Amino acid sequence: MRVGVPSETKVLERRVGLTPDSVREVVAHGHEVVVETGAGLGIGADDAAFAAVGATILPDVDDVFAAADLIVKVKEPLAEERAKLRSDQTLFTYLHLAPDPEQTKDLMASGAICIAYETVTDDDGGLPLLAPMSKVAGRMAIQAGAHCLESPQGGAGLLLGGVPGVAPAKVVVIGGGVVGANAIEMAVGLGADVTVLDRNVAVLDELDARFGPAVRAVYSTRSSLDRYVLDADLVVGAVLVKGARAPRLVTADMV
Amino acid sequence: MRVGVPSETKVLERRVGLTPDSVREVVAHGHEVVVETGAGLGIGADDAAFAAVGATILPDVDDVFAAADLIVKVKEPLAEERAKLRSDQTLFTYLHLAPDPEQTKDLMASGAICIAYETVTDDDGGLPLLAPMSKVAGRMAIQAGAHCLESPQGGAGLLLGGVPGVAPAKVVVIGGGVVGANAIEMAVGLGADVTVLDRNVAVLDELDARFGPAVRAVYSTRSSLDRYVLDADLVVGAVLVKGARAPRLVTADMV
Amino acid sequence: MRVGVPSETKVLERRVGLTPDSVREVVAHGHEVVVETGAGLGIGADDAAFAAVGATILPDVDDVFAAADLIVKVKEPLAEERAKLRSDQTLFTYLHLAPDPEQTKDLMASGAICIAYETVTDDDGGLPLLAPMSKVAGRMAIQAGAHCLESPQGGAGLLLGGVPGVAPAKVVVIGGGVVGANAIEMAVGLGADVTVLDRNVAVLDELDARFGPAVRAVYSTRSSLDRYVLDADLVVGAVLVKGARAPRLVTADMV
Amino acid sequence: MRVGVPSETKVLERRVGLTPDSVREVVAHGHEVVVETGAGLGIGADDAAFAAVGATILPDVDDVFAAADLIVKVKEPLAEERAKLRSDQTLFTYLHLAPDPEQTKDLMASGAICIAYETVTDDDGGLPLLAPMSKVAGRMAIQAGAHCLESPQGGAGLLLGGVPGVAPAKVVVIGGGVVGANAIEMAVGLGADVTVLDRNVAVLDELDARFGPAVRAVYSTRSSLDRYVLDADLVVGAVLVKGARAPRLVTADMV
Amino acid sequence: MRVGVPSETKVLERRVGLTPDSVREVVAHGHEVVVETGAGLGIGADDAAFAAVGATILPDVDDVFAAADLIVKVKEPLAEERAKLRSDQTLFTYLHLAPDPEQTKDLMASGAICIAYETVTDDDGGLPLLAPMSKVAGRMAIQAGAHCLESPQGGAGLLLGGVPGVAPAKVVVIGGGVVGANAIEMAVGLGADVTVLDRNVAVLDELDARFGPAVRAVYSTRSSLDRYVLDADLVVGAVLVKGARAPRLVTADMV
Amino acid sequence: MRVGVPSETKVLERRVGLTPDSVREVVAHGHEVVVETGAGLGIGADDAAFAAVGATILPDVDDVFAAADLIVKVKEPLAEERAKLRSDQTLFTYLHLAPDPEQTKDLMASGAICIAYETVTDDDGGLPLLAPMSKVAGRMAIQAGAHCLESPQGGAGLLLGGVPGVAPAKVVVIGGGVVGANAIEMAVGLGADVTVLDRNVAVLDELDARFGPAVRAVYSTRSSLDRYVLDADLVVGAVLVKGARAPRLVTADMV
Repeated sequence: MRVGVPSETKVLERRVGLTPDSVREVVAHGHEVVVETGAGLGIGADDAAFAAVGATILPDVDDVFAAADLIVKVKEPLAEERAKLRSDQTLFTYLHLAPDPEQTKDLMASGAICIAYETVTDDDGGLPLLAPMSKVAGRMAIQAGAHCLESPQGGAGLLLGGVPGVAPAKVVVIGGGVVGANAIEMAVGLGADVTVLDRNVAVLDELDARFGPAVRAVYSTRSSLDRYVLDADLVVGAVLVKGARAPRLVTADMV
Repeated sequence: MRVGVPSETKVLERRVGLTPDSVREVVAHGHEVVVETGAGLGIGADDAAFAAVGATILPDVDDVFAAADLIVKVKEPLAEERAKLRSDQTLFTYLHLAPDPEQTKDLMASGAICIAYETVTDDDGGLPLLAPMSKVAGRMAIQAGAHCLESPQGGAGLLLGGVPGVAPAKVVVIGGGVVGANAIEMAVGLGADVTVLDRNVAVLDELDARFGPAVRAVYSTRSSLDRYVLDADLVVGAVLVKGARAPRLVTADMV
Repeated sequence: MRVGVPSETKVLERRVGLTPDSVREVVAHGHEVVVETGAGLGIGADDAAFAAVGATILPDVDDVFAAADLIVKVKEPLAEERAKLRSDQTLFTYLHLAPDPEQTKDLMASGAICIAYETVTDDDGGLPLLAPMSKVAGRMAIQAGAHCLESPQGGAGLLLGGVPGVAPAKVVVIGGGVVGANAIEMAVGLGADVTVLDRNVAVLDELDARFGPAVRAVYSTRSSLDRYVLDADLVVGAVLVKGARAPRLVTADMV
Repeated sequence: MRVGVPSETKVLERRVGLTPDSVREVVAHGHEVVVETGAGLGIGADDAAFAAVGATILPDVDDVFAAADLIVKVKEPLAEERAKLRSDQTLFTYLHLAPDPEQTKDLMASGAICIAYETVTDDDGGLPLLAPMSKVAGRMAIQAGAHCLESPQGGAGLLLGGVPGVAPAKVVVIGGGVVGANAIEMAVGLGADVTVLDRNVAVLDELDARFGPAVRAVYSTRSSLDRYVLDADLVVGAVLVKGARAPRLVTADMV
Repeated sequence: MRVGVPSETKVLERRVGLTPDSVREVVAHGHEVVVETGAGLGIGADDAAFAAVGATILPDVDDVFAAADLIVKVKEPLAEERAKLRSDQTLFTYLHLAPDPEQTKDLMASGAICIAYETVTDDDGGLPLLAPMSKVAGRMAIQAGAHCLESPQGGAGLLLGGVPGVAPAKVVVIGGGVVGANAIEMAVGLGADVTVLDRNVAVLDELDARFGPAVRAVYSTRSSLDRYVLDADLVVGAVLVKGARAPRLVTADMV
Repeated sequence: MRVGVPSETKVLERRVGLTPDSVREVVAHGHEVVVETGAGLGIGADDAAFAAVGATILPDVDDVFAAADLIVKVKEPLAEERAKLRSDQTLFTYLHLAPDPEQTKDLMASGAICIAYETVTDDDGGLPLLAPMSKVAGRMAIQAGAHCLESPQGGAGLLLGGVPGVAPAKVVVIGGGVVGANAIEMAVGLGADVTVLDRNVAVLDELDARFGPAVRAVYSTRSSLDRYVLDADLVVGAVLVKGARAPRLVTADMV
């Protein structure tokens, strides 16, 4: 099979569908890989890095689409990319079709097989291509939150972990799933005073066993949300809790 | 030298001046040891246990005082014991003379050399015979406090560490010295939400390095005392903080 | 639906079927809640606390039973409570019917739907309403055991964790399930020398990964039970091991 | 004594000489405190917060200097502030006189007693008023470095701790003193691959005992500096290592 | 049922099919056990130890085979043992038939029921009688590797954990399953610089949660294998990675 | 100054006085270094490695002694090396003169200044050049002991940490100084059941704070030595305890 890797075109998107390491794996399994020139620059991988592991560099995105049986990207194709898809091709990328009827229509019209990363499901019902993004989001949420609490960024001038003598900042994590557990790991690592709220006792059990007295694992009710969120310096949640007057709320969607 | 170990006579005192293991050490250094019959029963050591390591069992306290060059006890001698002391004897025990002028007078009158455990000082200015008591007191303070918080004991029905889903109880330790550090170790071990207040930043540094995010190490001021003590479920202090309206205060003197 | 919360009538039972926080959740889902006056006093919640979250306070237990579609309690109903049940009502509480044929007969006669907390089963076969009690029991077992080992309580005068210089007490936990794991967590937290015995290697694997060298995870056989239980200072088990001559045995049923 | 707290005038300086909590302590010791109006706004403390703990709010910096026996500030006084000092006053603040001969001249001319925080020395030769700044600097260095490694900030797009599957970033800390140890604590907390280089084996011993296999403690030589610094993603040092071609160097002075 | 335990005859095999503790369990369940004289000497259990728990000692292997309904061994039977099997017997031992057609033929000819430990499967598809061997193999791999790195054994003269000042040795574990996780636990315990490579992200997640910054959990690709294996001081794998030029490779089969 | 590094001549000694990294430091400080050809082969450093950092390679040990102002070695000089020393030279190496009067005489006769590593004392009375050897000895003691407990080495066939289901081996460390603390760190890391005995309570305090419930810190008396050493699987001590019938005793001198 011939795999094509075009440059990403969405604004601020610096990633690429396959890294040189991934290309090497694909090639080792007997496939061909074509890469648009410069596609890896955003991650610090130049054409030579791709060529070194067996990819063919093509000068133009049209050449990549023309040559490929399988297109591997990061973000959903923009309209001009959708126009290049053929019915004998497979597209493999994040699609997020729900809020995007125009894309859906175009993809159906193309006749291509389009597989959205976010819908790939494993035998246990997990979403293996979405989970890594949630891990990154959870970890970044604390990093972003810590930055926002700095005084020059307009924050309260708090260091998440304080220093000995000064109490640490209060971090509340709403939901102890993948995003939440990764946020907790970073917040505890920075020495913050961490509370996690969840409605699933098995999740609280696991977090309690893992983090012990470093995390307050509390069943989530309207009352406990009020008690902890309104007293927090930083709140991390996978989704926005409507109406919560949180001092500073970082949601996974924001990072 | 002949070392004498009388039974303790103070109410509720079950300890004894030398354990059989200690007697064995003393005998191995070439000394004789005489023990009053039954002196070790409070710690589960019968006369046979003392005899097995080389002690001579004497049937009466008077025999012990008569035979000994050095009397080793736990608590200060009562009036009738003081009357048995001779000027050629040494008494080694806790004395706590400050609030006890009568004892002081009797001991001076006896002419004996009286060494109080609590005043023995090491090269670094430490009190090596007092410190173990402080360690026990700090550890017991949490055990006693946890017991007092049980509902049948008239407490608030709180488990120090909560269970996953229920926030742990708030323990405030005033002073991070020997008593405090040992109390913290137990409170963290039981999963409590622990705050320590101290005016010595080096102490806070050390506790922070040791316990990390499991303990809030806060500089002690009137404001921080108010903030944490008034919100606590259990307060542990080496001495009573006057006027503090603590929900439940366990001091080292009480255990 | 109208939910009724009568006062508990069993001797020494201080809990209540719904806390104010729970009432708030129920009300937020569109139900009505009626609470017998004084029902929450045992947990420190007065009528005003229930009224503040939307409950109606009723002056008499008969009013509560009369008004409610669903009765939420803690302990099984006593005979006089059973007499108040109607066939159009649902009772939700711990029942423990096995040893109690009289209760079973009355409940069947009432025609009410009676759901026992202890039989509610989740998708994985777990007992989610029994597990929290097991967690509390396991944690309390160590607290109760530590108290019993104190000399004034008639114990051996041992501190579970010892102090540096004095070896810690030996705690043996029979069974590493929910009760056992929670007991281990507390015993390790207090610095005890902990051995857990179980016949399920997967349980031992998990405890070994979690507690590492702080716990001795041993396969349970007649020989290992003899070896560890007979040498223990404190034994914790979910059920009594018949014939074991344990120095001091705390079972989950006892706390 | 009357203590005066003027607003800080240096650009970007948002701190204040005394917080309301500190004012409360000073007042409790029998002193008077006068605070320039608005002096605490940068830390979120308004005039009412100071008044509530017993301070007198004065409308103008001149009034504060006129009224005070002791001036407590954060940063060195600017020329116009120096002009207000009287020979019967004491100034207590960070001065950093070494590179600032003009300030030195003015202060000497004023006749005031000027005590620089950074020169206050404790009995062990430590600098207790400088150490907290070093702790903050060390902790902030990792936070700042993590931010700088983000792709939108022009960094390599690395998360310090990686995520499972992706190796963490390599952090090298040059010097394991107060700045370094605090940086290490944060870097380990975020899951980074941390190496510390120091020429003091006692420092390496202590860091090894504290952080175990989570930190590589290496004796600092020209060769080890080359080996680790040139391979690092982030380098933290209290001072700039001249000539080191570090991929990204955060020094304590920069935060 | 009568259970027979012959001595192991394979060279260097010092184990025995049932320990005295196991015999005690079997006997307590109402079975008889016959043991060949001297069968337990390799594990330090003499005939008296077996007799004390109810076994009958038989003077000859032929007597054991003659008397037993069930033969319990450690290793596969050698030809002369296979000749003793009867069609009314069951053999329970490790067999590893795949590479051993001669044994397979003999066992089938014997008519005995032969159950291989390594094929016993539990409800979750696990291999409960193989897993303990994998745990031992993983732990021993690090012990053996550490020994091999000693200079007198021809190794590089490296201590796995280094000492403060000297960087630890680099250990790469290929595969984070039972063998790998146990090897990691020992390598981290000795202070090594550990990297684990696996293609199962769930495995990496679990190891990351368990070992945190003490282990580098990396997705296994041709590139990451090259990067880490070629730079390692010690490589542990359950199976040999063909063509990998590892500095020193310990596989589970080797210990 | 010209520094000379001869090859070590003592049997089995594979180390060398200066590594290439050390030579680089010496040269950077403005000194010359001459190295005997092949001196670094035992640590894997060939002549080119030394030349690359500025050393001059000399073909013969006599040339090295002739050229050098300062001789840096590892082990004490043998008779033939002593004969090459001149009165204008300094020798810097381990000497261990106490049991070696002949060496002492020769060195005095040479007129050279001879500084023994093991006697270099720092400001706190520590022995900075001896401590690293003690760290290595303590760590190696456990590695050597673990190897000796393997069945093929004639040991009891015990894995130090056991596996889940099988209790770990009992390790007793006599003395919690540098050797002991390093042995403890490794033994705990391997999952052993560790007891440390010491007569210095401050040492026990520190080990207890560092290792918590993973180590039993016991005051060393005749009785506690009997109790723990006689029950141990492996005993580590800096010096041999006379008369102790330890199952297996590894002393620091043996590794």
